[in-house]
Amino acid sequence: MEASTPSAEVMARVRAALTGVELTDEDAARERFSRDESGCEGVAPQLVVFARSEDDVCRVLRVANAERVPVTPVGARTGKSGGSVPAAGGIALSLEKLTRVVEIVPDELRVVVEPGVLLADVYAAAEAHGLWYPPDPNSWPTCTVGGTIAENAGGPVALKYGVTRDYVLGLRWVLPTGEPLTVGRRTSKGVAGYDLVSLFVGSEGTLGVCTQATLRLVPKPRGVATGLVGFVDTAAACRAVSAVLGAGLLPRCLELLDDVALAAIAGQGLPLPSGAGAVLIVETDGHSTESAFEQLLRVEAVVRGAGALDVVAAQDESQRERIWAVRRSVSPALRRLSPQKISEDVVVPRSRIPEAVARFKALGAAVGLTVATYGHVGDGNLHTNVLFAPHQRALVDTLLGQLMAVTVELGGTITGEHGVGLAKKQYLSLEQAPLLVTLQRQLQGLFDPAGVMNPGKIFPAE
Amino acid sequence: MEASTPSAEVMARVRAALTGVELTDEDAARERFSRDESGCEGVAPQLVVFARSEDDVCRVLRVANAERVPVTPVGARTGKSGGSVPAAGGIALSLEKLTRVVEIVPDELRVVVEPGVLLADVYAAAEAHGLWYPPDPNSWPTCTVGGTIAENAGGPVALKYGVTRDYVLGLRWVLPTGEPLTVGRRTSKGVAGYDLVSLFVGSEGTLGVCTQATLRLVPKPRGVATGLVGFVDTAAACRAVSAVLGAGLLPRCLELLDDVALAAIAGQGLPLPSGAGAVLIVETDGHSTESAFEQLLRVEAVVRGAGALDVVAAQDESQRERIWAVRRSVSPALRRLSPQKISEDVVVPRSRIPEAVARFKALGAAVGLTVATYGHVGDGNLHTNVLFAPHQRALVDTLLGQLMAVTVELGGTITGEHGVGLAKKQYLSLEQAPLLVTLQRQLQGLFDPAGVMNPGKIFPAE
Repeated sequence: MEASTPSAEVMARVRAALTGVELTDEDAARERFSRDESGCEGVAPQLVVFARSEDDVCRVLRVANAERVPVTPVGARTGKSGGSVPAAGGIALSLEKLTRVVEIVPDELRVVVEPGVLLADVYAAAEAHGLWYPPDPNSWPTCTVGGTIAENAGGPVALKYGVTRDYVLGLRWVLPTGEPLTVGRRTSKGVAGYDLVSLFVGSEGTLGVCTQATLRLVPKPRGVATGLVGFVDTAAACRAVSAVLGAGLLPRCLELLDDVALAAIAGQGLPLPSGAGAVLIVETDGHSTESAFEQLLRVEAVVRGAGALDVVAAQDESQRERIWAVRRSVSPALRRLSPQKISEDVVVPRSRIPEAVARFKALGAAVGLTVATYGHVGDGNLHTNVLFAPHQRALVDTLLGQLMAVTVELGGTITGEHGVGLAKKQYLSLEQAPLLVTLQRQLQGLFDPAGVMNPGKIFPAE
Repeated sequence: MEASTPSAEVMARVRAALTGVELTDEDAARERFSRDESGCEGVAPQLVVFARSEDDVCRVLRVANAERVPVTPVGARTGKSGGSVPAAGGIALSLEKLTRVVEIVPDELRVVVEPGVLLADVYAAAEAHGLWYPPDPNSWPTCTVGGTIAENAGGPVALKYGVTRDYVLGLRWVLPTGEPLTVGRRTSKGVAGYDLVSLFVGSEGTLGVCTQATLRLVPKPRGVATGLVGFVDTAAACRAVSAVLGAGLLPRCLELLDDVALAAIAGQGLPLPSGAGAVLIVETDGHSTESAFEQLLRVEAVVRGAGALDVVAAQDESQRERIWAVRRSVSPALRRLSPQKISEDVVVPRSRIPEAVARFKALGAAVGLTVATYGHVGDGNLHTNVLFAPHQRALVDTLLGQLMAVTVELGGTITGEHGVGLAKKQYLSLEQAPLLVTLQRQLQGLFDPAGVMNPGKIFPAE
């Protein structure tokens, strides 16, 4: 049984028990901590606590257990599924002030950070030693490590380099009951006992709170090459993706822009071949610039054989940056086309992408809504965007349900990198059998018997 | 409370309940299923069951629950930690007859196999489409996929490509209570719900039985290059490893042979520089042979700068194979030096390897035992071998305890790829706090309330 919104009297006792901890119940802070990038609606927290130490986190959770008060851990609120939006008030537990890079050991390809460290600062710490931390969600300049761990964030380079879970070696973790624990290891390998690290990564704040993370780094590739490939349509682009991977080539990114996305960014200076109904952005990397370009040339040969209209390779860093700037502008450009939009992150098996894109579009057209698709096509991870006006919200909800059902029917998953949170919990049962949901609920109950840890997330109400 | 060895009467009821299932209680089979490659001693199973379907697995586990009979899942018995050695008799549940490659979808870099498929056959299925399944434990010609999943097997290429867990997308899984379940996904990404796949991979047969696995494949690198580098001693070799990784180079293998290992294989035709007290085997790969050799040349430049005595690159496939043949011969060669040996798989942080190797050697010398170290030095994963005569067994046990304690003191883990099983459970508490062990025990109890699933493994008796 999950904790529900506490009374003012309970919250007064909680406050009294947290003497010396930095906290506020001012309206502005409560309002700020009631939303993230998802647009999901929750219940504003009654108290915002800023942890300054692991001990603060333990104290908050012990009090929360004693008083059965919901606790929502919060990073930078850049999430897209409502993971940090309190569903039942209580305490918003901000980790944003735990910002220490505790240790970096270049020889061992390892960095230890607190959860409030920005992903950008992890990159910088690694870069100073010629190393790299690959996970690259779009929000990397502003998101925190703790948030990426909670949501198991991905990004464009996941195609070659995997997602956050692949880089977390060990965690310092506070259980929902307030007990701190070290799980995992600091070595690159290790199989002693159950993999609780992988269980905690991506648990969306429901199984406890990260207070320190040991992350694996890799040698930074010395060369990167980026190209833009035009196709007559999305199906042709997808066939080319299969051809590239089948030819023994593994670019680090294969990003798709479909016709609607291309129309939205028309006039922004992307050097597109005329007649292109879809575009792939291809990025290769290697131990040298020459190696990266040589791979891009091989990709070019394969995609031309697979029907590409044209291939343009960025000749220098500024041309590379221009391509990515245009890629990043897709989302705001679509937003300019339409007062509101919802961006999904479904994944379908790679060979089903053309069918998925076509069916999503047709379902939208049937109710008069425009659907654009772009994203990490190499992974099958599609950012399907539904454009709509405020009065169409009910139509959108119906359409989203249909998109999720088609995704699952095609063998896919409802979320590739954003998480379930509040945004998708009503769709979870499309994908997961009742026994599986029950098992996860039991697991959650084992870790959090009082039901205080980010209640209302992931699983539909029983 | 774990199930204990059942009476003959109970086993007679079990047999009666399993009409139509392939099984035997002949002594030869029972004896065969009482051991694996670990040398661990257990209690011979009273019944050996050969599952021919998932339904067989479900039936066995339902009966086992009703009668509280231990069930030990068994693959090819190539494991090194006693995972498939029954600790309390009962049923040995062999999956070796589930050998179907169910589906391979090259476009989606995915293969679906039953647990009894040999790893070698997964390689062959992938290879036929220009694809590759990277996990490469030494036992790959004879081990089964199910065993590698149970133990989260690694191998030399883990340095660049990771371990088994990194390649399992989804599982068909029978819970210890006999209920079948689908967990995970078939897409390369997905974050819906808790990561039960990662929890089940490496659970050493204690959380249920795999009946089908969906594995991720990668494009097969088109070029591979292998070199042999001599150093004056192990410390110099380790410094070179750090220099290589620090220079932005990521070979797929970095294997160490120390002076004892080198002495054991002297005269086998490895082209070693005179005066070499340690050797690194370096293997690079890439999208072409040229790319792989170019990387090896860069490695050569770095290791020469870091004090290498000599570098020899294999010029063709037969020379490459000779280097690996010698690497594979280390273990049998050490066995020829000594009537018995124990091979450990500890991991220490990379920068502590020289200290670890020196301390292991000194601890051995103090009690008159020779210690050899070789293995996956790029990962810090050391196959530390203790050579001994039968009468020295008690000394060896004391020494192993000391090696494990030093490993943990240096920030390492007691097992990098073999698993805890029976072999290392008395050392688990050196590495893991009581709260962590308790939590894992509770988790185990949630999945297996009757305690029938591979009892006696991983966790020390309470």
